[in-house]
Amino acid sequence: MVLPSAEESLSRPSLPAGLRQDLVDVVGAEHVLTDSRTAGYVVDWTGRYRGFASAVVRPRDTAEVCAVLALCSAAAIPVVPQGGNTGLVGGGVPRAGELVLSLGRLDSLGPVDRAAMQVTAGAGVTLAQLADAHPDLDFGVAITSRHSATVGGTIATNAGGVRVLRNGPMRAQIRGVEAVLSDGTVLSHLSGLTKDNTGYDYPSLLAGSEGTLAVVTKARLRLVPRLRDPIVAVLGLPGLAELHGLAIRALQEVPGLVSAEFFTRTGLDILLRNTDLTPPLDAPAEAYLLLEASDAGALEALAELAGNLPVAVGHGAADRARLWAYRERHPEAAGFLAPPLKLDVSVPAGRWVELATSVGDVVTAVDPGARVITFGHVADGNVHVNIAPAAEVDGRHQDAVFSYVASLGGSISAEHGIGALKADWLPLSRTAAEREIFARVRAAFDPAGILNPGILPR
Amino acid sequence: MVLPSAEESLSRPSLPAGLRQDLVDVVGAEHVLTDSRTAGYVVDWTGRYRGFASAVVRPRDTAEVCAVLALCSAAAIPVVPQGGNTGLVGGGVPRAGELVLSLGRLDSLGPVDRAAMQVTAGAGVTLAQLADAHPDLDFGVAITSRHSATVGGTIATNAGGVRVLRNGPMRAQIRGVEAVLSDGTVLSHLSGLTKDNTGYDYPSLLAGSEGTLAVVTKARLRLVPRLRDPIVAVLGLPGLAELHGLAIRALQEVPGLVSAEFFTRTGLDILLRNTDLTPPLDAPAEAYLLLEASDAGALEALAELAGNLPVAVGHGAADRARLWAYRERHPEAAGFLAPPLKLDVSVPAGRWVELATSVGDVVTAVDPGARVITFGHVADGNVHVNIAPAAEVDGRHQDAVFSYVASLGGSISAEHGIGALKADWLPLSRTAAEREIFARVRAAFDPAGILNPGILPR
Repeated sequence: MVLPSAEESLSRPSLPAGLRQDLVDVVGAEHVLTDSRTAGYVVDWTGRYRGFASAVVRPRDTAEVCAVLALCSAAAIPVVPQGGNTGLVGGGVPRAGELVLSLGRLDSLGPVDRAAMQVTAGAGVTLAQLADAHPDLDFGVAITSRHSATVGGTIATNAGGVRVLRNGPMRAQIRGVEAVLSDGTVLSHLSGLTKDNTGYDYPSLLAGSEGTLAVVTKARLRLVPRLRDPIVAVLGLPGLAELHGLAIRALQEVPGLVSAEFFTRTGLDILLRNTDLTPPLDAPAEAYLLLEASDAGALEALAELAGNLPVAVGHGAADRARLWAYRERHPEAAGFLAPPLKLDVSVPAGRWVELATSVGDVVTAVDPGARVITFGHVADGNVHVNIAPAAEVDGRHQDAVFSYVASLGGSISAEHGIGALKADWLPLSRTAAEREIFARVRAAFDPAGILNPGILPR
Repeated sequence: MVLPSAEESLSRPSLPAGLRQDLVDVVGAEHVLTDSRTAGYVVDWTGRYRGFASAVVRPRDTAEVCAVLALCSAAAIPVVPQGGNTGLVGGGVPRAGELVLSLGRLDSLGPVDRAAMQVTAGAGVTLAQLADAHPDLDFGVAITSRHSATVGGTIATNAGGVRVLRNGPMRAQIRGVEAVLSDGTVLSHLSGLTKDNTGYDYPSLLAGSEGTLAVVTKARLRLVPRLRDPIVAVLGLPGLAELHGLAIRALQEVPGLVSAEFFTRTGLDILLRNTDLTPPLDAPAEAYLLLEASDAGALEALAELAGNLPVAVGHGAADRARLWAYRERHPEAAGFLAPPLKLDVSVPAGRWVELATSVGDVVTAVDPGARVITFGHVADGNVHVNIAPAAEVDGRHQDAVFSYVASLGGSISAEHGIGALKADWLPLSRTAAEREIFARVRAAFDPAGILNPGILPR
């Protein structure tokens, strides 16, 4: 894949002057960015995806989003909706001159409805703002990028994170959505009903649609009770099979289990060499299971579960953060070795051990010098496969990992989405009939075909 | 609404002879029912909806479903998919000569995957069979009709029930679906992945689509840990405002809360007069809150919550069943007075007390002799409004209740669906833009327009 350099990007032709003026009339001149002012919006944070934009338009509210989309529809200008730009698969950056619709200014956060445990948030509100909105309530989705990742972007990607086990992904937090179709029509259903069987659940469809169906402008979101004095434990295990067995037992036996995460000696050793982290346990283990739980009885259940295994337990906030850091800093590990390739796959529970054990060999079979760091979520079948490649990144690593995952009945994208990174491999996870229905649904929402046209191709 | 009598229905013309033979060739002569043999399939169990069918076809597997649908598509014969026929809004019975596609024979239940806590079930498996599939695991959705209601039907209606609070509705149980489009194409994604962001989540869309998008033939479903020694408490309260306040507190304070249900003196008195039930508490109360919880600490939390309120607590299975009967038999209550009209609405949490308190007056304003029994789910905003009418059922009751609910920002169907009963009132809950996108999504799935054509009209 050859992408233009930043210099090339900025020299590309811009919008028709008439359209540019129309956009300025809608959002104001200071919110129609062109040329070098688009720089922060045309590259993703991994640096792997860098395109160019005819303009970046920053509406401040739903009405402006409608007007901008109606103009783009009429002019057949492709649009890439963008939230906090923390995506990992190149789904939110322009590729070849699309208009970037940045939703960051839709950042109004309504009052928390304590009885309903809900709040209405604009697309530009960050997940950290949601988590901090009320002292007794928390947001159900916790991801490392929560200080930048926004409501709109995380709905579009159906973000997962470390509490899916307890709270489900973004899709499960949605109690209502306001979204704008490509022709400027508003779909709105925000009253926050927990039960509502009055037609098709299009909010669930928008979750994970990667900006291809409609532009989410607001959401009514559920909040969850804030954990009271949660306990975090990091256990050392001799291998991944033992780790998986213990995690499955934890699911059954630990009351109020919120997270069951893992990492391995490989990734930990890299972090210990390159950061200020110190070893979590007295002696190194091959595999590490991090459990967080909050209910009464959790501590006894954890102790029972741990038996004679080495374990570190964190009670207070600082202690918990210290233990979580071993897991949360794992996305950095591969980057200490080489510009990393980050894959994110899931398999059925019965194949998890096989995946986690063998995926490293699958990679080194096509790139003998590669280093492979695995970590992630045990209980939901999700493994993050971060690769520090030695050979050229020409698709061979992805081919190998995704084909292997498909052979296990798994998904080539557990939580990051398809985006640009995985588009070529979608047929490994979805049949021709499924991709055909995707295309028909997409045409139903966006007949003009202007929304994120490079993403989720057939 | 004038519906044909059973005699009229059976005299209507039948299928073209050529198509009938083709169907016989697919499913066998004993599974193509016509004339009087369709009787059990053309009336819903409330008796309110009675149509006629050109035939009832009972395929035994997915391949036969595909073949039948391909034949119907080619001949432009409308099809009504039918599961256990326990629907309450006339969504699963034919109206005017459609072909009924009965999925009851797709009743294979796969082995329980203990580690994944999942099972694959045919569309004709009942929810009771799912609940009984493994000694340590239960199915997350519990509805009164569980011995007849099937996987296919409850996905199509997104059934709710008394554990939505803990487990969510049917949509939240789905880990994969196999479904057949009207042209016979199979969509299949059954490997049971908890996290899978590879395109549009069409299983969530099929949930609640009332048989209008595709015919669900199988589902991969999550199971939940079976409750260990749950506790049931029925508390007597002086009014609905106090009841709602206590339920909201219970949500926060009772660990492992599974259900928060309510009924009132009105319904209870009718049941006490007409059944063998005896009063739950020493003295009558105006409103009754039923709570079920299972975790360690639940009993103490319930005792703390109850304070000095009158309360009956059930520990063993028989005792719990005795207390649940007060709630579970409420759907019968209105029927002791008159052929009942059963409405099912929800409102935002902040409007629940208003709804539950005033809906009776809203009904008697249009039918002064009507008796109104309310009961249902407190924590999710859902109230079942059962009416024993005195005046003719000509739409006035529905007009009054649904308009009132819409004025509160609520839904005219919390869990039963739209079906035939509520079709005329859909615009109260959904905007023109939403109904337009429904129509476009429907055309994307079923371009021939043969699936349940009378249901979910624009």
